[in-house]
Amino acid sequence: MQAHKGTAVRWKQDTLVAEEPMEIRLLAREEQQTVAVTMRTPGNDFELALGFLHGEGVLSGLDEVSHVSYCLDADVEEDQRYNIVSVNLAGRHLPELDRLERSFFTTSACGVCGKASLDALEIQGCEAFPKLQPNLDPAVVKRLPGILAEAQGLFQKTGGLHAAGLFDTEGTLLAVREDVGRHNAVDKIAGWMLKARLPALENRVLLVSGRASFEIMQKALAAGIPTVCAISAPSHLAVDVARRFGMTLIGFLRDDRFNIYAGHGRF
Amino acid sequence: MQAHKGTAVRWKQDTLVAEEPMEIRLLAREEQQTVAVTMRTPGNDFELALGFLHGEGVLSGLDEVSHVSYCLDADVEEDQRYNIVSVNLAGRHLPELDRLERSFFTTSACGVCGKASLDALEIQGCEAFPKLQPNLDPAVVKRLPGILAEAQGLFQKTGGLHAAGLFDTEGTLLAVREDVGRHNAVDKIAGWMLKARLPALENRVLLVSGRASFEIMQKALAAGIPTVCAISAPSHLAVDVARRFGMTLIGFLRDDRFNIYAGHGRF
Repeated sequence: MQAHKGTAVRWKQDTLVAEEPMEIRLLAREEQQTVAVTMRTPGNDFELALGFLHGEGVLSGLDEVSHVSYCLDADVEEDQRYNIVSVNLAGRHLPELDRLERSFFTTSACGVCGKASLDALEIQGCEAFPKLQPNLDPAVVKRLPGILAEAQGLFQKTGGLHAAGLFDTEGTLLAVREDVGRHNAVDKIAGWMLKARLPALENRVLLVSGRASFEIMQKALAAGIPTVCAISAPSHLAVDVARRFGMTLIGFLRDDRFNIYAGHGRF
Repeated sequence: MQAHKGTAVRWKQDTLVAEEPMEIRLLAREEQQTVAVTMRTPGNDFELALGFLHGEGVLSGLDEVSHVSYCLDADVEEDQRYNIVSVNLAGRHLPELDRLERSFFTTSACGVCGKASLDALEIQGCEAFPKLQPNLDPAVVKRLPGILAEAQGLFQKTGGLHAAGLFDTEGTLLAVREDVGRHNAVDKIAGWMLKARLPALENRVLLVSGRASFEIMQKALAAGIPTVCAISAPSHLAVDVARRFGMTLIGFLRDDRFNIYAGHGRF
């Protein structure tokens, strides 16, 4: 890599973020289907697969899973072996993939507007959080980005990764995951919670390094995390999700400040 | 929105980025199919649809399109009318959507590794750019982010949008598009080029406000833009695309510096 800084030009070694496609396969005893192919940074692949499937409502819990493995079939080339994750279900048949298909690729008309997207979360089984939730301390909230940055392993080297951190309301870091895709980082957190059988407590706080979009809120909601903090801005649909489902949404959390878009009663 | 800054707490009005789902429908005289549903910031929707379809190799040019319209069928609810874009093809039948299906949702085994992803671009019909390309001036390159920021309308208000700008090698801004999704901003640029029947010249330069991933490079390549600059880091697969297809890739373009990951011979 050739670095230009001011008028100086130097050749330097640079560590690049790894980006590889990953295929998620769902297997039952008598059926098999590829559910998605996502570009991701390798690492915590099983968590990514579990978190993605849970977030999309395909898996309702770990009890439905018999085991997760890389696909090591003889006809899969060496290069590709660690890019195919097989989620093996305990049951005989695959679950209904209709909803998922609708999100990705569909041949039938379907509701396409903000309200329909919110309704879809309810159809998926997401419920509003209870009204009474633990208080949040502004001083603790402001500390979170620093804690996340310190815990980020790869970012320091590459500057190219999105991060998601799971905290409790005391500011204790429970897990941090990184990925070239910001959705994947959140899926990895959700998958870790599932694998660790972490109970969905109301003191969970998710911090994401980028923006808070509809899909980030959807993933937090499905994972049972009532509070989402973003370093950057939320979208209006993210705010709508927070308000409809009793979540707390904080944006622009940086430089000793933050904005509360939903849930200010907890402060 | 409640703003916390230091120890001060104020209630403020905030402009939020709009985020709404958009469905892209492909229509031929005798067939119809929904191709994708994407979360996007409304605006330049026809460009988004055209750019997306072209980038995925579904459309090879504007000649295949008879017209683009919002779906205003009587059974489509008011809320949803401007969220469904119909791309009407001149032909009688829909094109082969196999490749697209593979990217989103598939039931058959397919190559899943970085090399396979690069090969897929060749199968899609992408060709390497010629070796000899116009020189790039470091001073011009460094000016691009400032020009893009100045031209960004929505970002100033919301801080929540990704931007993509199309320049020439002299630093002249040709177009700027914003979206809550960074891929969408690039699709809108590509769609604009298509609609404007802008010839694919070797002096085109794309600047993106975030990272350079595989998919950003894929979209630039398909749009015939040989040079991609990113404010943040590229992934290793983005660099691989650049090297395989004779593209120039610049990362960390900010604060009077940038890194060249491919194409340094042009400086």
